[in-house]
Amino acid sequence: MDVDRLVELLQKVRQQKLSVTQAVSRLRHLPFEDLGFAKVDHHRALRQGFPEVIMGQGKEPKEIAAIVRALRRRRTNVLVTRVSREKMARLKKLVGGLSYHVAARVVTWVSRPTVVRGRGTVVVVCAGTSDIPVAEEAAVTATMMGNRVERIFDVGVAGIHRVLENRVRLEAASVLVVVAGMEGALPSVVAGLVNKPVIAVPTSVGYGASFHGISALLGMLNSCAAGVTVVNIDNGFGAGFAASLINRL
Amino acid sequence: MDVDRLVELLQKVRQQKLSVTQAVSRLRHLPFEDLGFAKVDHHRALRQGFPEVIMGQGKEPKEIAAIVRALRRRRTNVLVTRVSREKMARLKKLVGGLSYHVAARVVTWVSRPTVVRGRGTVVVVCAGTSDIPVAEEAAVTATMMGNRVERIFDVGVAGIHRVLENRVRLEAASVLVVVAGMEGALPSVVAGLVNKPVIAVPTSVGYGASFHGISALLGMLNSCAAGVTVVNIDNGFGAGFAASLINRL
Amino acid sequence: MDVDRLVELLQKVRQQKLSVTQAVSRLRHLPFEDLGFAKVDHHRALRQGFPEVIMGQGKEPKEIAAIVRALRRRRTNVLVTRVSREKMARLKKLVGGLSYHVAARVVTWVSRPTVVRGRGTVVVVCAGTSDIPVAEEAAVTATMMGNRVERIFDVGVAGIHRVLENRVRLEAASVLVVVAGMEGALPSVVAGLVNKPVIAVPTSVGYGASFHGISALLGMLNSCAAGVTVVNIDNGFGAGFAASLINRL
Amino acid sequence: MDVDRLVELLQKVRQQKLSVTQAVSRLRHLPFEDLGFAKVDHHRALRQGFPEVIMGQGKEPKEIAAIVRALRRRRTNVLVTRVSREKMARLKKLVGGLSYHVAARVVTWVSRPTVVRGRGTVVVVCAGTSDIPVAEEAAVTATMMGNRVERIFDVGVAGIHRVLENRVRLEAASVLVVVAGMEGALPSVVAGLVNKPVIAVPTSVGYGASFHGISALLGMLNSCAAGVTVVNIDNGFGAGFAASLINRL
Amino acid sequence: MDVDRLVELLQKVRQQKLSVTQAVSRLRHLPFEDLGFAKVDHHRALRQGFPEVIMGQGKEPKEIAAIVRALRRRRTNVLVTRVSREKMARLKKLVGGLSYHVAARVVTWVSRPTVVRGRGTVVVVCAGTSDIPVAEEAAVTATMMGNRVERIFDVGVAGIHRVLENRVRLEAASVLVVVAGMEGALPSVVAGLVNKPVIAVPTSVGYGASFHGISALLGMLNSCAAGVTVVNIDNGFGAGFAASLINRL
Amino acid sequence: MDVDRLVELLQKVRQQKLSVTQAVSRLRHLPFEDLGFAKVDHHRALRQGFPEVIMGQGKEPKEIAAIVRALRRRRTNVLVTRVSREKMARLKKLVGGLSYHVAARVVTWVSRPTVVRGRGTVVVVCAGTSDIPVAEEAAVTATMMGNRVERIFDVGVAGIHRVLENRVRLEAASVLVVVAGMEGALPSVVAGLVNKPVIAVPTSVGYGASFHGISALLGMLNSCAAGVTVVNIDNGFGAGFAASLINRL
Amino acid sequence: MDVDRLVELLQKVRQQKLSVTQAVSRLRHLPFEDLGFAKVDHHRALRQGFPEVIMGQGKEPKEIAAIVRALRRRRTNVLVTRVSREKMARLKKLVGGLSYHVAARVVTWVSRPTVVRGRGTVVVVCAGTSDIPVAEEAAVTATMMGNRVERIFDVGVAGIHRVLENRVRLEAASVLVVVAGMEGALPSVVAGLVNKPVIAVPTSVGYGASFHGISALLGMLNSCAAGVTVVNIDNGFGAGFAASLINRL
Amino acid sequence: MDVDRLVELLQKVRQQKLSVTQAVSRLRHLPFEDLGFAKVDHHRALRQGFPEVIMGQGKEPKEIAAIVRALRRRRTNVLVTRVSREKMARLKKLVGGLSYHVAARVVTWVSRPTVVRGRGTVVVVCAGTSDIPVAEEAAVTATMMGNRVERIFDVGVAGIHRVLENRVRLEAASVLVVVAGMEGALPSVVAGLVNKPVIAVPTSVGYGASFHGISALLGMLNSCAAGVTVVNIDNGFGAGFAASLINRL
Repeated sequence: MDVDRLVELLQKVRQQKLSVTQAVSRLRHLPFEDLGFAKVDHHRALRQGFPEVIMGQGKEPKEIAAIVRALRRRRTNVLVTRVSREKMARLKKLVGGLSYHVAARVVTWVSRPTVVRGRGTVVVVCAGTSDIPVAEEAAVTATMMGNRVERIFDVGVAGIHRVLENRVRLEAASVLVVVAGMEGALPSVVAGLVNKPVIAVPTSVGYGASFHGISALLGMLNSCAAGVTVVNIDNGFGAGFAASLINRL
Repeated sequence: MDVDRLVELLQKVRQQKLSVTQAVSRLRHLPFEDLGFAKVDHHRALRQGFPEVIMGQGKEPKEIAAIVRALRRRRTNVLVTRVSREKMARLKKLVGGLSYHVAARVVTWVSRPTVVRGRGTVVVVCAGTSDIPVAEEAAVTATMMGNRVERIFDVGVAGIHRVLENRVRLEAASVLVVVAGMEGALPSVVAGLVNKPVIAVPTSVGYGASFHGISALLGMLNSCAAGVTVVNIDNGFGAGFAASLINRL
Repeated sequence: MDVDRLVELLQKVRQQKLSVTQAVSRLRHLPFEDLGFAKVDHHRALRQGFPEVIMGQGKEPKEIAAIVRALRRRRTNVLVTRVSREKMARLKKLVGGLSYHVAARVVTWVSRPTVVRGRGTVVVVCAGTSDIPVAEEAAVTATMMGNRVERIFDVGVAGIHRVLENRVRLEAASVLVVVAGMEGALPSVVAGLVNKPVIAVPTSVGYGASFHGISALLGMLNSCAAGVTVVNIDNGFGAGFAASLINRL
Repeated sequence: MDVDRLVELLQKVRQQKLSVTQAVSRLRHLPFEDLGFAKVDHHRALRQGFPEVIMGQGKEPKEIAAIVRALRRRRTNVLVTRVSREKMARLKKLVGGLSYHVAARVVTWVSRPTVVRGRGTVVVVCAGTSDIPVAEEAAVTATMMGNRVERIFDVGVAGIHRVLENRVRLEAASVLVVVAGMEGALPSVVAGLVNKPVIAVPTSVGYGASFHGISALLGMLNSCAAGVTVVNIDNGFGAGFAASLINRL
Repeated sequence: MDVDRLVELLQKVRQQKLSVTQAVSRLRHLPFEDLGFAKVDHHRALRQGFPEVIMGQGKEPKEIAAIVRALRRRRTNVLVTRVSREKMARLKKLVGGLSYHVAARVVTWVSRPTVVRGRGTVVVVCAGTSDIPVAEEAAVTATMMGNRVERIFDVGVAGIHRVLENRVRLEAASVLVVVAGMEGALPSVVAGLVNKPVIAVPTSVGYGASFHGISALLGMLNSCAAGVTVVNIDNGFGAGFAASLINRL
Repeated sequence: MDVDRLVELLQKVRQQKLSVTQAVSRLRHLPFEDLGFAKVDHHRALRQGFPEVIMGQGKEPKEIAAIVRALRRRRTNVLVTRVSREKMARLKKLVGGLSYHVAARVVTWVSRPTVVRGRGTVVVVCAGTSDIPVAEEAAVTATMMGNRVERIFDVGVAGIHRVLENRVRLEAASVLVVVAGMEGALPSVVAGLVNKPVIAVPTSVGYGASFHGISALLGMLNSCAAGVTVVNIDNGFGAGFAASLINRL
Repeated sequence: MDVDRLVELLQKVRQQKLSVTQAVSRLRHLPFEDLGFAKVDHHRALRQGFPEVIMGQGKEPKEIAAIVRALRRRRTNVLVTRVSREKMARLKKLVGGLSYHVAARVVTWVSRPTVVRGRGTVVVVCAGTSDIPVAEEAAVTATMMGNRVERIFDVGVAGIHRVLENRVRLEAASVLVVVAGMEGALPSVVAGLVNKPVIAVPTSVGYGASFHGISALLGMLNSCAAGVTVVNIDNGFGAGFAASLINRL
Repeated sequence: MDVDRLVELLQKVRQQKLSVTQAVSRLRHLPFEDLGFAKVDHHRALRQGFPEVIMGQGKEPKEIAAIVRALRRRRTNVLVTRVSREKMARLKKLVGGLSYHVAARVVTWVSRPTVVRGRGTVVVVCAGTSDIPVAEEAAVTATMMGNRVERIFDVGVAGIHRVLENRVRLEAASVLVVVAGMEGALPSVVAGLVNKPVIAVPTSVGYGASFHGISALLGMLNSCAAGVTVVNIDNGFGAGFAASLINRL
């Protein structure tokens, strides 16, 4: 049903050629997609101050540049994930004013300053220095989404004292993102120390039987500590995003 | 928006308190789910003469009986898949008048005689005698959905002459369901002989490295013959259903 | 260092044989585990009103009975997961006063009435009727942990209108637990409709290439909708627990 | 048995040196492959107006050029799949007059104009922009095989309204090719909306636990919507071919 | 083309109504399957003195009994594999005169005494006592197919001297079947000692990471010793059969 | 070469019919296996006081009984692993004087009292109560092989304080066996606390994505703590045996 | 025991300081490895006229050159497998007189002309043109090992007539090597047509769910045709070697 | 609790404002992490003379250089693993005085001469020449950690005599590291010959179904020889480290 048909129906009501009951009945049986205008509002997220997110991997610098320029015109904050140093070098020749977060391999462009909307602190923890890129992706994402973010890096379970030394900071979190490769055991230890939701991020760090992160992923899914939920391998963005939703409750 | 609100809006139009343009504008911005009545018609399939399908596996006889009784009242044809002989024995004490297709492990109840609506013939082929239950599930499903069905059973690729002997019958099909376990090679051979769509069904027949049908499934997905599409392991019903949709075009 | 040694050290301070600075210095270098008494408080969770949780699977009724009796004496609320109907029959001959949640296969014993501490509502959604046991495990867990819980069951993605009809209720949640087997697509659809954290629970429902829940698990880990985190296959308890932590923030 | 021997036999019949019964008996016991001439007609497909298909991947430009030249001489339409931009650059130096479909990575050469033989429309749907190459491969294949093709791209399940907005076009299809990576949920949703055969194509789009398309493949094989059949990961050609067979029925 | 049509064609030749060239041309274009009589001879194997083989697993005793009775009438030797002790107990109540090879779980019925046709000796070796059932299945199969068979059992690689003690007997073989579970290393060691073809049979013996024989299977496929070929997990019959073909050359 | 031939050769030397050089030359070219008597001593292990080990799983009680009786006659200590309670009940009717270690599912018969030969203490640690059977199998094995054994059970990483409380005992070990299911993280934590070899034993404890111990196995193979080596899933015996070899050095 | 000690022992015998019985007894208890000279003859294979084989993959051209030069001095025929075109270009600058088999990626150097020792013909079959490199590796290997080799290439199961046309040549083989990628079905079809041993070689040809040859490997292991044995993925050499052992019997 | 609070508490004791019993009680209930100074001593390993280990893979030469320089200042021995020849070329331009172990791909810098502390000899064995890099990594690691190391290379199980020839040297070991790719059978054979702990290292050597070392890994985990423990694929360092811990007992 297009608008013309709806107008026609309403005019019949107005002209009393159609009773209200008859009109309700007709409208009731219209499949919604024929209405054409009952569109779901997919801009809700943006109105809440979240940045627009672009997956940089698999896109050419000029494609990214085009999208960024379009978003800038809308004065939307922009977050581009998975941008290698090489790609950034080519990208910044195409668009100016971008910030590059080297460790996170993330590009941002801030149109409107980010307002802190999260109630507590998102603490991002990682097990080894090789896990930092993924942890930073989570941290930059959470920051861009309006959260206070604290980082506790390089605290693997083989040196459990390093985890324990940070216990006060861990407990002060409202939600934690815990990043680890290899055996992926850190989230279990952390979740056993705090009473807060822990989002575990397996990384592809390791070799041999780490199987590009499967080992860490399985370890996290089988965590003996309740309160741990898991995202995809290397998905720092997803963890930062979920943590932001939780922190905004 | 509930019906009351819609009635109110239409009454305002009728009373000319609201212009048609205003009404259109309001309706346009209503998210469809607030309408309450713009429900998607999910009975479309049934109106086309398809039976209602119940997955028997994992349901108690008395649960199946309850569903069957309810459907009977609507005078809908019924197809219950994956009913073991033991379950059938218990089921028929609870509901009368059911037909049991032993080989297919399928129960049917026909309220209105099935009208043949498929244009051509659905040919169901299987490689070994152990594949027959899955092939029969496909055949009974296609029959219940209004198709002429022909069966060519026990024609494995290790005895290629048996396939070739049936070539005329294979070519007479409008769509073929080809069922095989072990290496799952039969669909490739059949699809190479005909110019019709072939739906391949891997079965869990085999042992050791057949991995409960994975071997056959992978073989079919990698078919060197174009025109082969695949359904889940042992999913005779799904193949019969898809073949029916194709044959009805 | 045992208590005697600590007492000795403190007495030296008291007797001024050891300066405060010296005492601090000595204590500083004591490995904590030698203190014997600096124990981590593992009862913190319990003091917050969470029940004590027992994994019923793999335990004999008499083992469960013994643990339950001990916990009762402490007047702790008790939640026993994965208790089959048969095990419950034997268990209730050993301990009285237990409640059995049939669909959830969960046993509870409430010593002190559960106070609602969660700020919002935990909405538990499931795709098919076979997913209900896992969904109920999540729901009962969240209820026992002091949350308002709402259930939206049997809303699979193949009948997308059923999901959409519940959109208002979905949006009213503060956190959602979404349970699905087979392709595990429901969490993506739900997370696309709401701006709340979604905890996805894959179930082992399905056959063939569902591989006892791997298919659903992978689907959820690869969700194209941001905000989805995942727990182990069939881990309704874990999802309910994590949802409770999130809702209590 | 070569032709000479057959001629000899028939001459003996003609000369009445051999009775008809004897001749039948001799022919009856000839293994067919000795006949030499009872060849299966493998050109049947070509006579129906289908193009000759070459898998470009793994072939050198000069190999492809040689095959294309040979086919041109036969005035056959040609479809070369999986030709990268770099390979095309080298290929067009060797053979002139080729068309390159950039998005589909497909090369075509049309000798005789393609006649539309498909009865209805093949609708090709894809979930994300990264899935477009595979979707385009399907679309170009179906077009080259004589079908009307319509494209509905970038309609992922996390923004379900985008799928729903296209419902009328989806329902107008006679057969659908639905392409998706990551969790591969789109075919389930689409198949729930239409009553037509859906060919699902998993893509290797994603990272981590997408396992180069396994996640999407499993999701599609386990679709909760009847009527879905599946082809190999990234096999746009196979889906386009199968859709053409179905549409030509 | 049925026989009548062929007769008619030949009569026309005889009556000189059809030239030899015309007849050749018509016959040339007949698809062989229309001939009806050019059937591939699938009884060739039997004529060579091989027994008829029935896979006992998955068949009811009464089904097996029916097949055995039919074969007996043809005076064919019979080999039924994978018959459990329980099934044999029920089977022998239905058919008399069967021999049961307990260790091999094989039933035989010998109509005509087996003539030794193999030129050399088939040596069947196994690593542990748990591998004996599979090794015996191979040995009984090879015996039934007319081979001299020698057994060397329980010679695992962890006690390499046991293998070496049997070196003379190993070297006397014309073909070897080597059966092993767990790490499946025995075929490599044996093949390094002899210059004869080695057929490796992985067994599902083991637990944990043996993955029901996958570990042994992979070990054998990756054998560092040339001359090793592999059959499916637990496929003693297949190995015995292949060894027989090799020994008969 | 049998003994007769060797005697003959030596007699020729003695009778000076053969020079020493000739004798050496002949002996040099004898393949060792022809000697018949140059057998590798496979009883070495037994002479060191290790018990004879029988894998009880897959053996009938009467088979076990026969082996035990034979070993008793040799006055060898005996260790039978993987004997269920039911099997033990039947076994003890056949052989008297056996000890059954319920938790370890192990049967022992001690002919000569075990002498402690290990230099230090083997500490067996396990993560959860469900891991105890495997841990006990390791402990009983190590005890039977002449080691002082200490047990630290139920110290999972989600309650890290329980691990830390046992630090002194952990450090006192000369070798540690660390048993864990689910994510298998305990060995990493323990190995980070001590400077002793850690043998990690994954167990099949868990459900869903624990995949019967694969998750724990992978976690342990990818341990971020140096000094961890791993045995097969549920292989308590293997760990106890390896620990004994290490402790005896 | 070194030679000096043996000489000493024999001299004592000669000098009648040691009885023959004593000498036998001493020799009997010598572990063979102390003999120093009882070496297993590992040159047996070479004496039979087989070439020396070098795995070229993973070796630098200069390493290969050094080995080849050493072998030439011994006048041994040489076969180097897995030598890419690039590596060959560098290799031939280092050593002259080598033959390069382009399709097989194999280098040979023939010192003594190869004598045909195989009794029959080794027939090498492959399914698609992409499988030719592996098939050629098998063919060149078998030729170098003294066999008559015949090639039947590009006869996939989707065009079953191509297989059937070659039936006479297939049946003339004494042993067959059948090479196929994708679904790996060709060996089943071929083994169903002949009564000779079939060595199946899966190739890594394919994409997506071919999983680099796993699909073909599984298909071959699960072959429904008896007489098929399998080698590792892409292991043309291994198949050619095993075929040679079989043909030489 | 920070130091100020501790000082205050001790002063109260000193000033006798707080009894010793009260002070003990307060300290007893302090969570250790509040102490700030109860740090676990993580330098214990270093004090034992072990080198500091850096994982070179994934680190830039300048990052490695920076770490090496810092460690040098502390006069710590340094071991950098997984440094390719290319990386070493760049690294030595940044830091002088480094030793490069080509085969092991390991860099060392020795500040204080390594003292032999291991009691016996660590014997490192490998199966093929391609396994040497991993074996060398183990050997260099063990040497740097103060062990006598002996190498027995290129002794695969397909030439079992090569293993046996080295039996005396194998038995002289106090602990063995056994490195093998492909089927990974060598550790089983070696462990069957000696009574010492065997650390098995699977390598990624092989192709096709070796699956980058999975085949060897599974073979080792399923070793039929007791006394074998396993480390990650290609983890020569881990094996050398564990062997050192064992040898130092």
